[in-house]
Amino acid sequence: MKTLDAQTQREIRRGVVDIIPEQEFWNAFTEGRRLRLKLGLDPSKPDLHIGHGVLLRKLRLLQELGHQVVLIVGDWTAQIGDPSGQSIMRPMLTAEEVAANARTYMEQFFHIVDRGQTEVRWQSEWFNSFSLADVVRLAGRFTVAQMLQREDFRQRYEAQKPLGVHELLYPLLQAYDSVVIESDVEFGGTDQLFNLLVGRELQEQVGQRPQVCITMRLLVGIDGQQKMSKSLGNTIDFEDPPFEKYGKVMSIPDAVVADYLDLATVIPDEEVSYFRRQVERGGGEAMEVKKRLAREIVTQFHGIEAAEEAGTQWVQVFSAGAAPDQAPSYAVPQTKEGPLVIDLPEALVETGLAVSKAEARRLIRQGGIEVDGRKVSPEEAGHLLVAPEAVLRVGRHRFLRIVRATEGNPPVK
Amino acid sequence: MKTLDAQTQREIRRGVVDIIPEQEFWNAFTEGRRLRLKLGLDPSKPDLHIGHGVLLRKLRLLQELGHQVVLIVGDWTAQIGDPSGQSIMRPMLTAEEVAANARTYMEQFFHIVDRGQTEVRWQSEWFNSFSLADVVRLAGRFTVAQMLQREDFRQRYEAQKPLGVHELLYPLLQAYDSVVIESDVEFGGTDQLFNLLVGRELQEQVGQRPQVCITMRLLVGIDGQQKMSKSLGNTIDFEDPPFEKYGKVMSIPDAVVADYLDLATVIPDEEVSYFRRQVERGGGEAMEVKKRLAREIVTQFHGIEAAEEAGTQWVQVFSAGAAPDQAPSYAVPQTKEGPLVIDLPEALVETGLAVSKAEARRLIRQGGIEVDGRKVSPEEAGHLLVAPEAVLRVGRHRFLRIVRATEGNPPVK
Repeated sequence: MKTLDAQTQREIRRGVVDIIPEQEFWNAFTEGRRLRLKLGLDPSKPDLHIGHGVLLRKLRLLQELGHQVVLIVGDWTAQIGDPSGQSIMRPMLTAEEVAANARTYMEQFFHIVDRGQTEVRWQSEWFNSFSLADVVRLAGRFTVAQMLQREDFRQRYEAQKPLGVHELLYPLLQAYDSVVIESDVEFGGTDQLFNLLVGRELQEQVGQRPQVCITMRLLVGIDGQQKMSKSLGNTIDFEDPPFEKYGKVMSIPDAVVADYLDLATVIPDEEVSYFRRQVERGGGEAMEVKKRLAREIVTQFHGIEAAEEAGTQWVQVFSAGAAPDQAPSYAVPQTKEGPLVIDLPEALVETGLAVSKAEARRLIRQGGIEVDGRKVSPEEAGHLLVAPEAVLRVGRHRFLRIVRATEGNPPVK
Repeated sequence: MKTLDAQTQREIRRGVVDIIPEQEFWNAFTEGRRLRLKLGLDPSKPDLHIGHGVLLRKLRLLQELGHQVVLIVGDWTAQIGDPSGQSIMRPMLTAEEVAANARTYMEQFFHIVDRGQTEVRWQSEWFNSFSLADVVRLAGRFTVAQMLQREDFRQRYEAQKPLGVHELLYPLLQAYDSVVIESDVEFGGTDQLFNLLVGRELQEQVGQRPQVCITMRLLVGIDGQQKMSKSLGNTIDFEDPPFEKYGKVMSIPDAVVADYLDLATVIPDEEVSYFRRQVERGGGEAMEVKKRLAREIVTQFHGIEAAEEAGTQWVQVFSAGAAPDQAPSYAVPQTKEGPLVIDLPEALVETGLAVSKAEARRLIRQGGIEVDGRKVSPEEAGHLLVAPEAVLRVGRHRFLRIVRATEGNPPVK
């Protein structure tokens, strides 16, 4: 066990909101204890996004200091599902889906965290044999009032929105996980604080040393408004290809750039402060900082070369108007000279850029398709005139090149 | 299946507060359905009291009409116990205690209800193999708000008194019993209405014909104030001997005599109305009605002869001042002629009428001891003068005969 220098301590503290209780946590290092660091994995959300990065890097750092990560696969909850909705009486995910999703998650997780120092445990190990007596005893350790202190529970209860009785059980089950694995520290977003503290209290009740609860700042999504979350569609995923990562970063509002530098990179604090001031000046300086951020993020996942390439491509597309090299092309079998005539909805469907003509038309109506920097109107979409080799921009990040069908370039149909 | 005449219908309705929904219940008779009548047995309360009689006679009547009683032994709950109290992590009752208590209850139960037409089911049949998934699915069918509509839950929650999460589960488990046994009608006191309706709703949710809920008026205890309940010490138990039953009935306040006639006897409604008016006149007429009531109740359990005997004895004791034949005697070793001198606290302790001198003195201070119709004062208690063969009344129903010690009658010491 290594002791902590001030620099390491600062690194551990980065992105952290609360450590409860803080002194107990730092004491553990002084005492030379090997800590068991609990993290829950929700198999219904297999994809990691860069908002998770700060925590994963922290776990890696703590592993390097000799501590043990315990990853709990929430397979039990994922299979039972939420009985309050449509899914009643059938599993939310099958056992196969859970296993596949957990595999996907772990592939991404171990991109940062050291697999060798990680113990992977499945909730089903203990919950498959949990009896009604076990549930009643567990539930008897907490009062309804305690559970309704959880903010979202209380709000729903007070607003007379449905709050299922089973939902009160979930924090208790999660707390029970802490007891089973004898967790020393549990991590979660600030929205998880209540659940983490229930775990701490349960451990105390059964005579275990109670876990320290560490909450992490939540990264805001690329919309700059809400927390980054798959269900809000505002994530930058580990699995996004380099150019998509780069483009998404470039699209975030200036106001959140410093947050991203802080939470999604390992750029030292001093530099982050400097960049923060740069961004506040706005304009070209903000843009340069954003490029630096985008490059940092892409580099983490794909290396410096991919990052440079994505940056070059981005400048081409968004500054010079050129479409990225990978854009699919749509070949029009037209022998007549001059502009090509295309049925745009059909072209979008055939190239997979829209799933149906209805969706294509909606995209057009919303002004989502540009050609030569101007929006395509619904009126012209059915017989759009474009120059050969023209590039359409579809939404923010996708492109379609229109070409004339030749022998080496047969029409898509 | 017999159809119902008006008289039988009135008998079924006797002592009933609500039938929910009422029309559905009577229709079942018209349709000639054989009803499954659910009643729960709490093995932590093995002794039946006359407050239960009205329901048991109703079940008997319905059996005579061809219906089936299903008695659910709540052995599961009794063994798990209430984890919020001292009993956490240990069973409230052992399996042996549960079995013994259930046996005691059933001996008394089948004094009135026909054993041949009763199906006895134990909760453990289904709850021993209940999984966590089963609990979560069951709990997911109800909201916290629904559960907090139960009056005692709501009151405790609002008064910030502890309400354990597990307590929300108990009504759901009881409801599940209804599903398992496919109950058509469930009976309970008015304080059980919420639980009965949860059963009805759960059956509806799983596609069963929902049970009719019948609530019974609760008989007031012999104190005339609170509901008759073992824990309040105000019951007349099935197991009380004839004279005790008789004496307890004679001690109830006039105001509740009509209620007892209605709920604890099968005296026809018209007679009950007549007696109600008699009691309102008070004095000797009320006393005669009370004697009739006491005789009826003792007759139900011990036959007419025992009832007559208890009545005669009661008159001797309470009207003529003679102690009942069974009264213990306290022999004073005093040779001097004239009144005997006794240390009353000592006499009470030695004859087992008080557990300690402190208790004896408290009894005296409260005016609980009478001799020759006057109260013994604390001042005279230490050297009380009484005639040989005098009878002291101790409290309401106990007596002590004071005699001179002779050769055939040695002093107690």
